[in-house]
Amino acid sequence: MDLRGCRAKYRALAPTLTSEVDALKVSYPLVMRGGLEIISSLASFAPVICDFKIADVPHMSAMIAKEAFTWGATGVIVHGFVGRQSVAAVCGEAQRQGGEAWVVVEMSHDGSAEFLTPASERMVELALELGAQGVVAPGTRPARIALVRSMVGHRLQIASPGIGTQGGDPAAAVKAGADFLIVGRSIYQAADPAAAARTIRQSLPR
Amino acid sequence: MDLRGCRAKYRALAPTLTSEVDALKVSYPLVMRGGLEIISSLASFAPVICDFKIADVPHMSAMIAKEAFTWGATGVIVHGFVGRQSVAAVCGEAQRQGGEAWVVVEMSHDGSAEFLTPASERMVELALELGAQGVVAPGTRPARIALVRSMVGHRLQIASPGIGTQGGDPAAAVKAGADFLIVGRSIYQAADPAAAARTIRQSLPR
Repeated sequence: MDLRGCRAKYRALAPTLTSEVDALKVSYPLVMRGGLEIISSLASFAPVICDFKIADVPHMSAMIAKEAFTWGATGVIVHGFVGRQSVAAVCGEAQRQGGEAWVVVEMSHDGSAEFLTPASERMVELALELGAQGVVAPGTRPARIALVRSMVGHRLQIASPGIGTQGGDPAAAVKAGADFLIVGRSIYQAADPAAAARTIRQSLPR
Repeated sequence: MDLRGCRAKYRALAPTLTSEVDALKVSYPLVMRGGLEIISSLASFAPVICDFKIADVPHMSAMIAKEAFTWGATGVIVHGFVGRQSVAAVCGEAQRQGGEAWVVVEMSHDGSAEFLTPASERMVELALELGAQGVVAPGTRPARIALVRSMVGHRLQIASPGIGTQGGDPAAAVKAGADFLIVGRSIYQAADPAAAARTIRQSLPR
């Protein structure tokens, strides 16, 4: 799909989802194909979180975050494992731009257990200390969400990916403490994305 | 700088560097501003390594690598800490596309010691096992390069960032075992980038 086709597809999808979602999350492949303009284009329908999983040295990480905010993103996602300086650089950029920084402390795929899980509690502490908006914890492992919730109380929000196609159960993630669910393919690859989003929403505990 | 200005600047810089460098490394901010076309544009002057520090779940990581190779990249850089599945997804994509995957095992900034250093030897093993072209190890800490070299022998190449502005000494990194030096601001922010690259090259042990 060319750039124009890519932008057109997601611009057409966005307005159908606004009553069903709190925000739209964009990843690198979409921005790589659609250009940074797609952020401002989608931001006219709902807040945009740039899930760039920023994982660079501090000055590059800040530069990436700045691009996202400049184009209208409400939040960016940064990896905790890159350590204090890079997370601080992104949190600082978010604060300067009036935006949100979300820190990945564990991921939704099995491989996350290899290196991330042993370090995740220290990354949660880093997110608390550096003034992040929230942390990203796996919707595929509700016990880990519950652990994070027990650590942060109401000081940080929790967004949980891996819901649907990757196997995460929406109700279980919310019961464990997730404030937001991150759902990708189960919505955008559905025949009726808005209906798919509505079904997930209706399955949640009130 | 608008997209056209960004592309024009780096296209003008590239041909002045071809006799001084082995490859051109591009990071996200450049692709975000200049579009993916900048990869093929620069690839007409020298092999391009996309330093996207890929750090996503497996299917997204493969998608990002595929975009880079499709636009003419010779190699992509992936983070080891995301675990076996994501690194395998990127190495697999590289093998399908006849390209190279480079695995970050430690970074050049101080924060790297926090979570990466304790896990880096296992990431080196992962890179060996999954058929990566090489690993990325910090030019700012020659002792860590030497450790990696002792582990991999000649089975993997080592590329070392953090040379120059970040404090890494070119000769010390090469003596410790680096095959390639990654130099950013010390070249592209220099008054005469080609001369800056030449000076670094001439300072290396033969």
